[in-house]
Parts: sequence; C-alpha cells; structure tokens
Amino acid sequence: MSLNTFGHLFRVTTWGESHGPAIGATVDGCPPGVPVSAAALQVWLDRRRPGTSRFMTQRREPDAVEILSGVFEGVSTGTPIQLLIRNTDQRSKDYGDIAGKFRPGHADITYWQKYGIRDYRGGGRSSARETAARVAAGGVARAVLEQLAPGLTITGYMVRMGSKAIDRARFDLSEVPNNPFWLPDAEAVGEWADYLDTIRKAGSSVGAMVELRASGVPAGLGAPVYGKLDTDLAAACMSINAVKGVEIGEGMDAAMLTGEANADEIFMGPDGPVYSSNHAGGILGGISTGQDVVVRFAVKPTSSILTPRRTITKSGEETTIVTRGRHDPCVGIRAVPVGEAMMACVLLDHILLDRAQMGETRPGRIGPEHT
Amino acid sequence: MSLNTFGHLFRVTTWGESHGPAIGATVDGCPPGVPVSAAALQVWLDRRRPGTSRFMTQRREPDAVEILSGVFEGVSTGTPIQLLIRNTDQRSKDYGDIAGKFRPGHADITYWQKYGIRDYRGGGRSSARETAARVAAGGVARAVLEQLAPGLTITGYMVRMGSKAIDRARFDLSEVPNNPFWLPDAEAVGEWADYLDTIRKAGSSVGAMVELRASGVPAGLGAPVYGKLDTDLAAACMSINAVKGVEIGEGMDAAMLTGEANADEIFMGPDGPVYSSNHAGGILGGISTGQDVVVRFAVKPTSSILTPRRTITKSGEETTIVTRGRHDPCVGIRAVPVGEAMMACVLLDHILLDRAQMGETRPGRIGPEHT
Amino acid sequence: MSLNTFGHLFRVTTWGESHGPAIGATVDGCPPGVPVSAAALQVWLDRRRPGTSRFMTQRREPDAVEILSGVFEGVSTGTPIQLLIRNTDQRSKDYGDIAGKFRPGHADITYWQKYGIRDYRGGGRSSARETAARVAAGGVARAVLEQLAPGLTITGYMVRMGSKAIDRARFDLSEVPNNPFWLPDAEAVGEWADYLDTIRKAGSSVGAMVELRASGVPAGLGAPVYGKLDTDLAAACMSINAVKGVEIGEGMDAAMLTGEANADEIFMGPDGPVYSSNHAGGILGGISTGQDVVVRFAVKPTSSILTPRRTITKSGEETTIVTRGRHDPCVGIRAVPVGEAMMACVLLDHILLDRAQMGETRPGRIGPEHT
Amino acid sequence: MSLNTFGHLFRVTTWGESHGPAIGATVDGCPPGVPVSAAALQVWLDRRRPGTSRFMTQRREPDAVEILSGVFEGVSTGTPIQLLIRNTDQRSKDYGDIAGKFRPGHADITYWQKYGIRDYRGGGRSSARETAARVAAGGVARAVLEQLAPGLTITGYMVRMGSKAIDRARFDLSEVPNNPFWLPDAEAVGEWADYLDTIRKAGSSVGAMVELRASGVPAGLGAPVYGKLDTDLAAACMSINAVKGVEIGEGMDAAMLTGEANADEIFMGPDGPVYSSNHAGGILGGISTGQDVVVRFAVKPTSSILTPRRTITKSGEETTIVTRGRHDPCVGIRAVPVGEAMMACVLLDHILLDRAQMGETRPGRIGPEHT
Repeated sequence: MSLNTFGHLFRVTTWGESHGPAIGATVDGCPPGVPVSAAALQVWLDRRRPGTSRFMTQRREPDAVEILSGVFEGVSTGTPIQLLIRNTDQRSKDYGDIAGKFRPGHADITYWQKYGIRDYRGGGRSSARETAARVAAGGVARAVLEQLAPGLTITGYMVRMGSKAIDRARFDLSEVPNNPFWLPDAEAVGEWADYLDTIRKAGSSVGAMVELRASGVPAGLGAPVYGKLDTDLAAACMSINAVKGVEIGEGMDAAMLTGEANADEIFMGPDGPVYSSNHAGGILGGISTGQDVVVRFAVKPTSSILTPRRTITKSGEETTIVTRGRHDPCVGIRAVPVGEAMMACVLLDHILLDRAQMGETRPGRIGPEHT
Repeated sequence: MSLNTFGHLFRVTTWGESHGPAIGATVDGCPPGVPVSAAALQVWLDRRRPGTSRFMTQRREPDAVEILSGVFEGVSTGTPIQLLIRNTDQRSKDYGDIAGKFRPGHADITYWQKYGIRDYRGGGRSSARETAARVAAGGVARAVLEQLAPGLTITGYMVRMGSKAIDRARFDLSEVPNNPFWLPDAEAVGEWADYLDTIRKAGSSVGAMVELRASGVPAGLGAPVYGKLDTDLAAACMSINAVKGVEIGEGMDAAMLTGEANADEIFMGPDGPVYSSNHAGGILGGISTGQDVVVRFAVKPTSSILTPRRTITKSGEETTIVTRGRHDPCVGIRAVPVGEAMMACVLLDHILLDRAQMGETRPGRIGPEHT
Repeated sequence: MSLNTFGHLFRVTTWGESHGPAIGATVDGCPPGVPVSAAALQVWLDRRRPGTSRFMTQRREPDAVEILSGVFEGVSTGTPIQLLIRNTDQRSKDYGDIAGKFRPGHADITYWQKYGIRDYRGGGRSSARETAARVAAGGVARAVLEQLAPGLTITGYMVRMGSKAIDRARFDLSEVPNNPFWLPDAEAVGEWADYLDTIRKAGSSVGAMVELRASGVPAGLGAPVYGKLDTDLAAACMSINAVKGVEIGEGMDAAMLTGEANADEIFMGPDGPVYSSNHAGGILGGISTGQDVVVRFAVKPTSSILTPRRTITKSGEETTIVTRGRHDPCVGIRAVPVGEAMMACVLLDHILLDRAQMGETRPGRIGPEHT
Repeated sequence: MSLNTFGHLFRVTTWGESHGPAIGATVDGCPPGVPVSAAALQVWLDRRRPGTSRFMTQRREPDAVEILSGVFEGVSTGTPIQLLIRNTDQRSKDYGDIAGKFRPGHADITYWQKYGIRDYRGGGRSSARETAARVAAGGVARAVLEQLAPGLTITGYMVRMGSKAIDRARFDLSEVPNNPFWLPDAEAVGEWADYLDTIRKAGSSVGAMVELRASGVPAGLGAPVYGKLDTDLAAACMSINAVKGVEIGEGMDAAMLTGEANADEIFMGPDGPVYSSNHAGGILGGISTGQDVVVRFAVKPTSSILTPRRTITKSGEETTIVTRGRHDPCVGIRAVPVGEAMMACVLLDHILLDRAQMGETRPGRIGPEHT
C-alpha cells in the first residue's frame, strides 16, 4: 500500500475529495478481454449509494460512473481503466460553522497537524465518499474474477450494530439483499430498524461489525511471509474509513482457545480436503485452504453527532462542537459493499500473483500419487 | 508488502527456514551514521529466544546475530544491513513421523497445495523461527528511532492468555520485564504460570492476546488513504505467524459504541492538544494524533499438540496425528518482542515517509496564529 | 516502474488512449502547500502541443488541463492530484484503412500479440498522445522543485535530427525557446527547417537526439545500487515513446576513452568541489555531484510514413501499407518538453527519497573540519 | 528499482561491501520446483571471477557461492533464496594512502557528500564486487528460464574496447567463450590483447561497449507505458557500475535514420511474423516482437589509474592522487557476464508479469482466423 494505491498487480489508485468536482479510481493491471461497462459497474455503486434509505446520509448523489480509458469495444484492453464519478451534491455551506473547529474522533485534526490544510467542506480526502471509488474498482475486479474464478462469490453482511448482534442460528445468506442492513437474518430486521431509528432521531450514531465471506476461493492463494492473503485482507479492510479492527476466522477470540479447540480437523472429500470446522477462516500460513475465507471488521460510529462535544479551534481555544451536516447514523451499513469491493480486489490480486509464480497448473495435489 | 519484504522506505526482507543453515534479514533504507552493533541487537533477540523459561519451546538456539554488511566503524553506512542468525539446533528427526501428514491448523497443507513442497523439518519457511529475523531488524529500527524520535518508547505485553485476562485496574507497565509472560500485572503472574503449566503438562496449547503501546509518537505520521499508519500496523501484525486478528484503540468493540461514547474530546494542553480518552488508539484518519498508539493482536494456539487429531496424508488417506516435537505451549509469549519489532519498523518507516513528503518542519501548528 | 506508474515517492500514473474521451495523470505523493493551478500547468502543455508549427502533426488539440483533485484554495493538499486532458480532435476515420494491417516499426503488432486487442484509432495507449499527461505531471513536479530546490533549472533541446547535428561551438542555451526545434544554436535553425521541410513533403520522417540539462542539482541525490539517479533517469527516458537509447554525460562514447581522458579532476571552489570537466554528466556511483546533470536520448523516426512498406494483416496475409493520418515528421521535437517533464519528476522524486533517508542536513561536508 | 532491490516479481536485493565479511543476494519470487544448486550457480560466477587472466584485477577471490535458504532437496521452494559469497582477499592496506582523498571519476566523493561515510577499503558498496551477487542471482534466473522458456538463450560479448571495435562482417557468436574478451570475432583477439597490454602496462584503463543478445524471447513480454521491457532493460544495465549509456536495437543511431530506413518490414513466416531487419532490437512499444532482443551498454574506464590526477581531500585541500591497488585495465570485460545476468533477471521478471496478467494462453494470434 503506497499512499493512495493498493494492490501488487491489480493496482487501484483512488483520488478525489468529498467536495471537489469528482472522485475516481485508476485501475491498472487488469487482464484484457474482460467485459467491462459503466452499466455493470453501476450495479455495485448503487448498493453503496447514499440516500437510498432513511438509515443513510441524505446527501443525494447519483454516483454515476464514467469509464474514460482502458475499455474498447466493450472489453478491457489491458491498459489503465480510469473510473470517474462526479460530485453533484456538494452543499458545503452545511460545514461553514465548523470550519475552524476540530470534530472529536474525526481526521480534521490530524490532517491539519500533518498537512496544515483544512478542507472544511466535508472532510476532503478523509470523507467516506472516497469509498465510492473503491466500489467502482471492485466492480472491475468482480468482472475479472467471473472469468478467472467462475465459482467464486463474495458476500458482505452486518453481524453487529451497537448493542444488536445477529443470531447465528438464524443465519441465512440469501436474506442479505432483502433488507437495508444487509442482514443475514430476516427476523432481526425490524428490531434493528427500530434501534437505528432511535439513534438517528437522537442525532447520534453507532458502530457496526461487517463480515465478508468468499466461497469458491481456490486453495493456494497467498504467499509467505509478508505477502500473506490475510495480511493483505487486513490491510485492505483497515484502510476503509472508520475501521478499527479486522479479524480472520476465529479472529480475536482465538486468544481464548486451546490447540484442541482451534484445530480444524481434516478429512478427505471427493474433490480434495474437507474440514470439520473453519476456525482458520480459510487461511493457514497466509495461504488459502479452499474453505470459505471469512473476514470481519469493526466500523466505529460516525464522529458527526448532534450532542455537543468539547473540542478546540485551530487557534487553540477550547470550545464545543455540534455537527449539523447530513450524516449516516450507522456508516457501517455502507461499509458492506465497500468491504466486498476490497475483498474482490485482494482476491483477484492474489490470483494474479499466484498465476505469476505458479502458472496455471498446481503442483501440490493431494491423492494416491503422492506418498 | 511484497512476498518477503515489508516497508515503504525502511524495507525489511527476511529469508531462511527453520531447519536450513541460517535465517536472516536484509534491512534496506536505513539512514547512515546510526550506531548499530551485534551486541545491541542481541539484547532484543535474547528477549525472544526460545528455551529461556519452561513456558517456551525447549529448542535451544543461541540466536546469535552477525552483521555482514551495511555497518562500518560502528555506524550504519546507509547501505543494506545483512543480519544473519545461524540455526544450530535442528533436530529434524523429531519431525520424521509426521513428514507425510498434515497438521490440522498448520500451514503444512497450504504450502503443499501451493508449492508442491513439503519441508517436514519443522515447517520450513512457515516456522515461527522466521520471527527472530524480524526482531533483529526491529533492533535496527529502534536504534534509528532513538535518533529520530528520542522520546518514543514501544512496549508490548500480554493482555490475555486463554481464559486469563489482565485486570486493567492493576495495570503497571513497569512490571512487564519482570515476568516470563510480559505481564503488566505482577499479581497475576502466579495464576498465569499455574494455568500454563496445566496446559503444558497436558501437551496442549493456548492462544493469547498481545497489546503494543507506543508513547511519544509525533502527531502527523501516516497518510490517506492506503498509506495509513493503522493500515500498515494491521498488516505488520497480521503477517506474524499465528495472528488471526488485529485492532487499534477501541478495536472490534468500537462496533458496540455510540458516537458520544466513542468521541475522544479535545482540550488544549501546554504542548498541544490533549484528549479526554483514547478510543482512537492514537490514530485518526490513518494519521497519528500524538496520543499513545495502541494496537492489539490475537495469536492462535500452536497447532502442534499431543492430543491426537484427525487429518489426512499427502496420498489422501485419513489418519490421526500427534506432534511430539518441542513446541511452545503459548507461542503468544514470544510474539510480544516480535510485535514490538514490527511496530518499531512501521513507526520508523512512517517517520521516513513523513519526512520525505513534509520535510522536517510541520505546517499545521495549533495555536493563536491560526484563526 | 510498475506498468503505468513511475516514481518511488512522487508517483505518477498516466492513463488514457489517443482516441478515447480523455487522457490524464494521477500524481501522488506531492508535498502540500505548493501553488498548483491549471493555468501554470498549461504553460508546459502548450510547449508540447501539436499543431503549433508545420513541423508537428496537424492534429489540433487545445490540450487544456483540468485539475480534478488534490488542490484546494490554490495549493496542493498532499493528496492525489488528478489531471485530466480531454481528447477533442479524434478523426479516427483517418485510420480506417489500416485497421487490419500492422505498421512496420509500430507497436500495433506487439499490442496485438500480447493483448489480442487492436485499437486502430491512432495507436490507443501506444500513441505519443500519452506524453501530454507526463508533461502535465512534470508541471506539478516543477512547481514543487521551485520550493524545494529554488536554483534548479531543467532545459531540454535538440542536438541532432537525422543528418543534422548542432555545433557545440555555437552552443547557446538562451536560444532554445526561440525556435521551433528547441535548438541551442540560432544559426542552424534555417538549415534544419529546410531539411525537415524536405522530409515532411516527402511524407517521410526522421529521428532525433534530445539533450536534457539540469543545473543547480544538489549533490547527494540518488542511492546505490538500484536506486541510482542515472538508473531512474535512464528508465524515465526509455519509457518515452520511440526512444531507443539513453546516455549520461560522456555516454556511449565513454567506451572509447581511457581513464586519464575520462577523469573529471577535482578542485576546491568557494562553495565546494569544482571539476575540470563533466564526463560523468553530474553523476558518480549513481549519486549527483552537484555538476550539471546531462542526459541524452535518441528518438527513432515515426513509423507512419507515406512510402509503402511491406507488412502483414491480422489474418497473416502479406500486403503493403501507407499511413495517411496526420503525423509528426520529427516526433523528437515534441519529445523535448516530454523529456524535461520526466527529468523534473525524477529529480523531485530523488529529492524526496533523499530527504526521507538523510533529513534536511547533510553530513558529508568537505572542508577543514574533516581530516 | 528501490534502493537495493530490482524486479517486479522476480525480486533481487543485493547487499555487501567490497571489504566486509561477505556479499550476497536475496532472491524473492522464484517459482518452486526449479533445480538450483551452488555448483550450477558457480559456473556463472566463475565467468566473472577476477584474477582469471592478466586482463583482470589480480584480486583473487574464489567467489564461492553458498545457498542459505529457499532450496530444499535440490529444488527451489518458492521462498527467498539467500546467496552468500564470502570476501576472502581483502587487502585493505592497499587503500590506506588514499583514504582521505577522492578519486576523480569515482563514487568516493558522492558517497561522502551524501552519507558522510568514507569506506576507503576499496569502495565499499560502490565497488564492482557487488556485481558478483548479480551474477549469482542471474544464475537462478537462468535456471528458471530453462523451464519457462526452454529455447531462450542470452549471450553477451564485447563490441568495442577503447579504439578497437569488432568487425560485424566476421561476427561469430560461437567464438565468444573462446577468448578472454568475450569477442565474437576470433581474428581480433590478438590485436585486442596487445592493445590492452599496452593500457595495462601504462597503469591506464579503457572503456568498453557490451552487447547483449537474447534469442527465443516470446513475443508479448513487456507492458505499456512504464513497465516496458526496454525500460526495465535500460534500468538494469544502467544500474551496473560504471555504465554510462544503454541502447536498444539501432539505439542512439536511430536519431540519424529516416522512417523508411528504420522500418523493419514484416512478412509471414511459417511460425508467425518475420522481419526484414531488426532496427527495433526486438521491442516495439515496449513489448517484445519475438525477434532477438539486442541491448548495448557502454562501460567507462576504471577511475583507478597510475597517472597522477588532481583532486581534493576531505578537508578541502587540493592534492594529486595515484591509485596503486589491484584494478581492472578494462572493467568492461567483467561487465559481460554481469550484463547477461541482468538481462536474465529482467526477461524472467517479464515472463512472470506477463503470465500474471495474460495467463498461459496468448489471445493475439496472427493467422487466417483473424480478419
């Protein structure tokens, strides 16, 4: 990760500020011949788009993506794909009264301390708006994955929002697209909606935990010891705005287990190894096992709230602040498609890395010929 | 992170296998004129060295580091520093009976699936032995930090081991070097020792959680949006063997908070901003605030245990496995100095990155001149 | 250099095709607080712009640059600067009759062999049009250099065009902006113009050699042994379309010299070392000496000519080809500002790299205190 | 190229100084399962080894390479290969009398200006000794190329030494290994030997030009516009000590040609395109055509000569210097195997890069099916 670029071979550079003319992503390293269209990318952007339910910021942006390069006659050419999303709703006046103050829990103060620049118009580069560019780039990654790993699916969903957590006993992945919280639990939707309405009406905000699950990931992706698949997934998730933690499989709870409890026992299935459990989250030694790759990340609550908080001004005076702009009561909701996009980019990147080093045949088969 | 290299400007490449002739680290990008000696690096290596208490693997290695390049007349020259650690105790016969089987929860199977190579002599490149090279490289980073950020200190300690957790009410950083668990809680030591003895005698193993704390970190380190300080810390920790989760400040628990609870309110202190709390873990928008940088990571229990586990062989036959080699009942103990080393490398790397872009003066002062 | 990105810390990613909607550059790693405006960048672009004399392609593009991000209230913010240049004159019909044939000496055939894509509309990504994006990025680099190395100047000029070469005895840098060939030799202009008119009217083309000269470069830029300043300059120049060779100082002719002839003897001047000559081209061991940095590169003649050439079609049939589009009789003319831009980017990048490793004070002074 | 590392995917980091205990290379990204042995690498090192004829420095080093990691049971494992070469003949006393002076044309002064370090014992990191590590790494690259591109051959040879140049009419590649100059011209050997004896006995030195030729390079290697094959070859050659220029195919002379003269006309051969000539040097638009890839680079004469030269001391006093150490009268001779090694690394790196993006099938066939 190199300031504004991520990826080894499938490299995404995002650019743009919340209240500038546009944001976008430069996607380099895409294989040629892959069908890519603005319409297909738009499907993914629409899932992240603000203003689609009362649980999101009421900033209304069409978030229409334009492809400026790298696609010719409907397919990728192998050269950089420039994705541009214009900013259309930039009510920067909303922010005028906080221009000289730092919002507690917001990057205002650190951007100022580092750069001596205060882009008061909505956070500038630190705004969650940057994640739209990630989702567009993730759409390109998904188009490539469809060709290189046809059975691979990536699904993100919420598993916690403040005091509410899903009930794993009712886990149903097919419910995820049916509710505004990307919940794999239809029964919980009403309760979560009530809870978030309370938060929203109080001018408050709340954190969330998102789980990402990739099925159909080929075994063998990742590499020791700094090019591990989980290392790159951790970096990719931690780079998302407001994320404070990331874990694979058993995650932080692995600290509480014994070796017996943590071991995923191995059996021989018809197509290769099968496992009694997935504490590993599909990754051992940084390399995918072929099981589902399972990642979770925590999103902190938005710092923009209506309750007055103590803070200081650029001139060092103590004061209080209230943020009246349009904000997300739970920005974790919109982090779901963003997390999916990052996972798509990382998995594709590792497929390309693996293909570079290993070619398209796999030496390490498990079976009667290996004794 | 690029297979076996990490860092942007302070770049560390580690190499070597558990049972080869040596392991080591190639450290590139070190500023010149910094006092570096084998003796000074040895201090850090000795903290990680196995065999120093009954709670560690009984493999006995002096882990003596040699400097082969990059140091002349006692100071770094600005060219690559090659650090070499010979492997002296390589009882690979211990592993003979498991050479054809995959240990559940171990990288054996994924290395085989990817590379078609099975280095049965103790895990080869996936062995925790690789982390000695990190500690040596971290020693170089610390020597540079002493010059570039004199007040900066980095301390790692255990906060959980299986069912045991520290009591924050008794938190005392000065106790950390006084016990074999790097515990900031003198009272808990006896209880933890009894617990781990039970684990050890049962031929079992247990997970752990390590916390890293850096004080005196200058404000302004890190960069949006993929060069974030927390992104690189997350990647650095996740790249350590057996780590399954990493979090900053409030971490995964941020998912449960409201915006009011999570906001670290800001006040004006004599030397700059001070905060009512540190939910942020010293990082906002990927950039350091000047508060303590606080990172935690979870280490899963060693997969090598004496209780038989179900597994398969390279030829695909189902069987059971018991690992009789010398192993750590809680590998998390030795992860403490490793985590510190990774944090030292990341912080130094970001100091260099920051100095490149910003120079040595800081534009964003907070005070009366900024209105 | 990573497919479409160059630079270590000042990183430029260009994107876009000759006949797509736009081309551009994503500039990452720019220090904050530097005055950057579209108007200031336009000055550099206008120097490269086609259609400004009869010696250039008659394709007429305003080449107006827009800044989409990274600049706020007139200064850089430290975040990515997106530079966009719309393509307005895309007469792709000119190329229709060659769509199925490969131009000898052109990248048509290798793009086809690699990607299976033929963007017949003017070369797509291989078009010299891409270099406009470099010039825009170079304008940003120059703005930063003005702040970080105020006395540094970069000047490019032609030293050869086909059978014509400059007379070093009449060398006058101040003449460079006064003629359409960027010639440091006013007397030669008429003769060169006649020569190129003949070439142009014959529907032919001719090669050129460009020299770049940077004065005021601080001593100490560059690093052994793969981050050498000359290595990066060589790569930067060789990456320009149609460049076939690059040399530093004495260059290829160094092969003919003895050690006595090649040695630049050193004397002590009032401000540091001075040299009897500059065979080294201002670089020793990959590190700048403080003398002028002198680079030359050769540009081959455009492959698009009116004389029929033998070639093949995509279906493998032998045929002949004549290229009737609008082309440069000597593309080397427009390579002059492109070369300058690349040099500006490389020098700035190395200033940042040097500042990262060395800080802002220089340990190696030459003078009485060092004995 | 990142200070001491080169390569995108096949990454080589060299380390070590002329008079330290050892030098070496860390080779990362090697595919697994490739036969690699010290004995096989030694063959390449022996070609570069000093002291094997009177035309080389009389420093006598066995240059015996040891493999410390990354090879198990005779084949590469896919993890980093550490190659170590001990320095055994370090007569540093030879250099004592020049310890305080800067050799004109040598990196002494720039290392001092940058780092404030003077490793007077033979140049430290700037010594040509570093190139032994490149040759060892190149040997690994060759072993991999044998598997991935079986018909590919790389041959380097001298084409000029001072006033002597080869006669292309007598060009015979098979003669290259038969003489101490790597000359493809048996008749010239005696004349060159006499010439260099004169240089040597005069305590002088002379420059050289080396040509590298790779046959059997698959079409399609390289990528626009900064990942060009020729860009990486140029950087690789320019990074070799004492190299001052590099060119591809027609090279610098392309500046003198017309488009007609420069065009390599294309015909259809039995296995694909064939060309009337190879002005392009096997690369168009940065991508290989399938023709021989031809690179030349110029090596300046060694700066260490017996004729007194004017120079200054660290304390700024003017003086004269004579270098009495053991040196090469024509260091270009030893640059031949070094250039070959760099070319092997670059070609392999691009084969891996290409395989990553394109897979193992090639979309752009030329033939009847493409109309």
